[in-house]
Amino acid sequence: MPSLAVHRIAMAHPGDSSALAALFDDGVLAPAMVRAVIGKTEGNGGLNDFTRGYFTQSLMALLAERTGEAASRLAARIPCVLSGGTEGALSPHAMVFAVKPGGGARGLALGTAFSAPTRACEIGTDAQIAAVADTLRAAMRDAGIATPADVGLVQVKAPARTPPGADPRVAMARSRAAAAIGVALALGEVAPEAARAEALLADVSLSSARASISSGTEVTCNEVVVLGQADGWADGIALGVAPMADVLDLPGVIAAFRAAGLPADPCVPERERHRVLGVIAKGEPARDGRIRGHRHTMLGDTDLDAQRHLRGALGALVAAVAGDGRVFVSGGAEHQGPPGGGLVAVLAAKR
Amino acid sequence: MPSLAVHRIAMAHPGDSSALAALFDDGVLAPAMVRAVIGKTEGNGGLNDFTRGYFTQSLMALLAERTGEAASRLAARIPCVLSGGTEGALSPHAMVFAVKPGGGARGLALGTAFSAPTRACEIGTDAQIAAVADTLRAAMRDAGIATPADVGLVQVKAPARTPPGADPRVAMARSRAAAAIGVALALGEVAPEAARAEALLADVSLSSARASISSGTEVTCNEVVVLGQADGWADGIALGVAPMADVLDLPGVIAAFRAAGLPADPCVPERERHRVLGVIAKGEPARDGRIRGHRHTMLGDTDLDAQRHLRGALGALVAAVAGDGRVFVSGGAEHQGPPGGGLVAVLAAKR
Amino acid sequence: MPSLAVHRIAMAHPGDSSALAALFDDGVLAPAMVRAVIGKTEGNGGLNDFTRGYFTQSLMALLAERTGEAASRLAARIPCVLSGGTEGALSPHAMVFAVKPGGGARGLALGTAFSAPTRACEIGTDAQIAAVADTLRAAMRDAGIATPADVGLVQVKAPARTPPGADPRVAMARSRAAAAIGVALALGEVAPEAARAEALLADVSLSSARASISSGTEVTCNEVVVLGQADGWADGIALGVAPMADVLDLPGVIAAFRAAGLPADPCVPERERHRVLGVIAKGEPARDGRIRGHRHTMLGDTDLDAQRHLRGALGALVAAVAGDGRVFVSGGAEHQGPPGGGLVAVLAAKR
Amino acid sequence: MPSLAVHRIAMAHPGDSSALAALFDDGVLAPAMVRAVIGKTEGNGGLNDFTRGYFTQSLMALLAERTGEAASRLAARIPCVLSGGTEGALSPHAMVFAVKPGGGARGLALGTAFSAPTRACEIGTDAQIAAVADTLRAAMRDAGIATPADVGLVQVKAPARTPPGADPRVAMARSRAAAAIGVALALGEVAPEAARAEALLADVSLSSARASISSGTEVTCNEVVVLGQADGWADGIALGVAPMADVLDLPGVIAAFRAAGLPADPCVPERERHRVLGVIAKGEPARDGRIRGHRHTMLGDTDLDAQRHLRGALGALVAAVAGDGRVFVSGGAEHQGPPGGGLVAVLAAKR
Repeated sequence: MPSLAVHRIAMAHPGDSSALAALFDDGVLAPAMVRAVIGKTEGNGGLNDFTRGYFTQSLMALLAERTGEAASRLAARIPCVLSGGTEGALSPHAMVFAVKPGGGARGLALGTAFSAPTRACEIGTDAQIAAVADTLRAAMRDAGIATPADVGLVQVKAPARTPPGADPRVAMARSRAAAAIGVALALGEVAPEAARAEALLADVSLSSARASISSGTEVTCNEVVVLGQADGWADGIALGVAPMADVLDLPGVIAAFRAAGLPADPCVPERERHRVLGVIAKGEPARDGRIRGHRHTMLGDTDLDAQRHLRGALGALVAAVAGDGRVFVSGGAEHQGPPGGGLVAVLAAKR
Repeated sequence: MPSLAVHRIAMAHPGDSSALAALFDDGVLAPAMVRAVIGKTEGNGGLNDFTRGYFTQSLMALLAERTGEAASRLAARIPCVLSGGTEGALSPHAMVFAVKPGGGARGLALGTAFSAPTRACEIGTDAQIAAVADTLRAAMRDAGIATPADVGLVQVKAPARTPPGADPRVAMARSRAAAAIGVALALGEVAPEAARAEALLADVSLSSARASISSGTEVTCNEVVVLGQADGWADGIALGVAPMADVLDLPGVIAAFRAAGLPADPCVPERERHRVLGVIAKGEPARDGRIRGHRHTMLGDTDLDAQRHLRGALGALVAAVAGDGRVFVSGGAEHQGPPGGGLVAVLAAKR
Repeated sequence: MPSLAVHRIAMAHPGDSSALAALFDDGVLAPAMVRAVIGKTEGNGGLNDFTRGYFTQSLMALLAERTGEAASRLAARIPCVLSGGTEGALSPHAMVFAVKPGGGARGLALGTAFSAPTRACEIGTDAQIAAVADTLRAAMRDAGIATPADVGLVQVKAPARTPPGADPRVAMARSRAAAAIGVALALGEVAPEAARAEALLADVSLSSARASISSGTEVTCNEVVVLGQADGWADGIALGVAPMADVLDLPGVIAAFRAAGLPADPCVPERERHRVLGVIAKGEPARDGRIRGHRHTMLGDTDLDAQRHLRGALGALVAAVAGDGRVFVSGGAEHQGPPGGGLVAVLAAKR
Repeated sequence: MPSLAVHRIAMAHPGDSSALAALFDDGVLAPAMVRAVIGKTEGNGGLNDFTRGYFTQSLMALLAERTGEAASRLAARIPCVLSGGTEGALSPHAMVFAVKPGGGARGLALGTAFSAPTRACEIGTDAQIAAVADTLRAAMRDAGIATPADVGLVQVKAPARTPPGADPRVAMARSRAAAAIGVALALGEVAPEAARAEALLADVSLSSARASISSGTEVTCNEVVVLGQADGWADGIALGVAPMADVLDLPGVIAAFRAAGLPADPCVPERERHRVLGVIAKGEPARDGRIRGHRHTMLGDTDLDAQRHLRGALGALVAAVAGDGRVFVSGGAEHQGPPGGGLVAVLAAKR
């Protein structure tokens, strides 16, 4: 009988997993209970952001030391979904998802699954779409989530590999797009005949309202973490998800916190902040270069990547409502939520 | 009998003043009425941000063409306070302050003044503090503002010149600090014996709650624009100013909009957005590296300047409440509002 | 009977054309003699580099003041080819090309021409290729250069306009590529049937050994400057051009200086440096990610644009041979010189 | 009887030590022979460059696996001097210094030593100067180098720790300066009474002609590697060191290669390139903002750190002579070589 727990840990730098070691040392959490990690590291979030790989290496070394299992095997069964870039008010941190003994009639469940290794030539193709959909179905089975309607959020870490000479930014975007459509396919948000590679980055009408995708060079297959309602799980954590119409959609942000049972008005009051267990947000710079009719400059900045712009802006909005900067904000919301917008997901301890 | 008007203009690029030309062509505004410009251009906001000088040159060329007055003379009497950096959701724009015929019993007044040219060796010294205080007093006289208590907001553009070999970032910060203390001195917020160069960037207890300072290499003296209540001015524009305790202080932002008479809850509703005439915000990255106890990464980023981080975050928060990205956000809030925080000022048309 | 002169001017910032004003004031050059300007400004060299437009505005304002001709008319007949980015050892400067009275039997000639305005939809198409080829032919006629074999160097400033939503980096690259193939077409380096839009950025075997192309948003048509041998011109300036096989091809750099009659061994000796009138270099990051078999990191850097990487590296090499940092280095050498390499052109006063 | 060997390894990313594993697997090198590593990783080279720590972690994990010694103990006896930043033509790589059996009458020797842990308050003080001098003397003893005159090159990795609120860039620069003066003190290049903290970054007349210093947050004490002539070592490797007067001093670069016995004219010919075992260069942006009288823009660029500018330029020059981009170029040459210049050191296999 499982019970989901979420522990947020700080990191002093991307090689620092000492806060997790302290949880183990203090008996708060047993190493074998760790099932997934979703976190933000302080790199640039792009292709040459190695803070993700560094934290993963550090984390797996710690888990290997504490469990006796080889780091390579741990990495193949524990998704470590990291997004680089803590621009502005954001704070480097990770959410450690653990499954503990206990359980109940029905509650928030977590499941994970990994696809087969993805070849560079498969990025952004029908093959990747199908692989992500299949992997999500496996993760749902792992969690005991019975139907797509019970799924609350799907977090994917998708690989970004490029053949020599290809533009790596394109690979990162196409990989996110393919994974989002793969999720939408498995959840029934997009019809099978529409979930095709030629629609990626082209047909903006296709999207998932429950997908949050990161891509990076340090992963070699599609890693899926699913959260949703399932029988037999303890009922202690609420998950609220809401779409954002654009990057300034403060009411959308507030709606996600309220959906998780938190009295945000407009901010979560200080006395309730301890109930915030994790916050995930996706967004993207409006591709037509305008927000509510006014020109933005995110897309044409040679010195500052558009996703760095986006994370700093969206992150501040969500962090202001949440009460601090421990927000997982990830840019590149291709086919995730409405175009030019995104989504916010909040995990909260129930009262 | 004067009447203050504020017109917000968009710019397609930093050399584009066509929106102002259109206001002239349409008879909305006469060129001779322009008294000050406060705007955001899309540079990096640092020492090598030439978008400020470019827009100033374009604007003065337009005014020269339309008024017959030489561009150099116009530049010496019309403050053009530009802040570079439209990170995230911000939109390049300028507020054109004009004084039109009309008037009334008492209302929001505008005054301007320029100090004598500032030598590089005077930046960040007692001499600059005194010069800014004197210049502010001259601007108050220009507006007819009788006492410091009637001052609502002081916007200063301070020069940043460095002797060869000196660190230019230091000059920009010290110039902002000296100007802020100069304002605080003239407004009675800091005692004369405390308003000394040795306190700059050192004594964080000293600050002005009504100063907004930018610095840049394209100006050669201290340019001051003051807004406040004065007899004889028309009563059509409200000015609300509120401090922000930190960069996530969303209630502080909302308070400024409400102080200007706008029903922000949390955002200004769409039907009232047309009443927003201008928004000015100052903030800074918390110097102890933490926001509400959680580590931020703005200060140690070799690739992305701390002020670019700050503007993107603070700008999104203020823009979300205002309803769009036309917000003048300027980093470097040394001695402007509380440490690690800042202030927000809102100009609104009265109902 | 014309005589070509090249004056190099420094700029203290991108709005500074005082060094040219001094040449006018000192009687070195008459304003009416200025025929073209090729220079480097200190921006980022990308789409949001406004230093190019700023210097152009300043320069045209100066020329307008001194000639009485309207700035807009001057801009339509004097090509001002600016490349942003003075990374590393490079120094902001401009080469002012003037045609003075005098002349001779045969010598280095300069011609200029402008295409019709280019629409965004024409960038990177057959239409732009044809327009550049036609404009080059017009520039050759302007110079009196009789045949393609007499052409030494063609410098083009090509427009980079994008429809909303399109990736502006792609537009800049495609515009450079189309202009290079247009030059190659006019010079007979590429056959008419091969000079097609579908070959752009695809068929790396197509290139011009005499084209140097910059693109930017501040120009609205293809501006062409051609240098070559023609009858009737004074014989005082040598032009040496040599290809670079890759960005480390120091012998290639030296060859260009020697071709201009300068005794580079490996550097131009101090006593001969005054003979260097201008240096132009084009290069690009090797697209397979390797230089001589070793991985480079220029193409996948989220924080530092590949062209900024390239200019800093190539610029240092050329500047070391030339003796100082006044080198026009421009990245984006699509179809200009060998793939992964580029070309160097040197203007030198004959002994 | 020791024999020094230098193996250069490529890295596919900063977590990749597979090339060293291959050397072990192929029997080229035994893990126990590794004594020091000096390498370049592809970060930004600044305070938030975590590629150095990542590679160190990966390397020590490999060595721990192969030697059975704990990674923490290995890290405390094997200096791993990494410099981030492979701008331009540079290629990520590491030089692995090994001491193998063998030996001879007299040859190039290597010694290493670590200081006690450095506290943040000691950075840039007399205490750090003395600690580096003592550590260098210990390293000389380790190598059997009898006198300062026999020292060829001293490579130091110095810690950069800051108290909260302090500017981390200053700490990095002061730590490099203190280490350089510490080396100069031990080598007799600076008199004891002059080797004082107040001279750091102030008295540019003080310098070492044989010091190469990097600083970083991932090291906690001063790590020293010394190369020089000593009795009993095999005579197979030549070390050439030469100063650079400025960043364009190509003859200085060539001199270092020639001093190592390589026929650079100006480049090392292809048939001799296999003899290049390692190249180390230090340089800095001229602090007066000029190179040979012409303004450079490295020091005032808000978007691109001065050291990134510098490494790209200097790296290209040295790589062009060496023949490929495997050059250890490190910025921040405070008190290392002449002001505004630097030094180049070349390790070459003797014929």
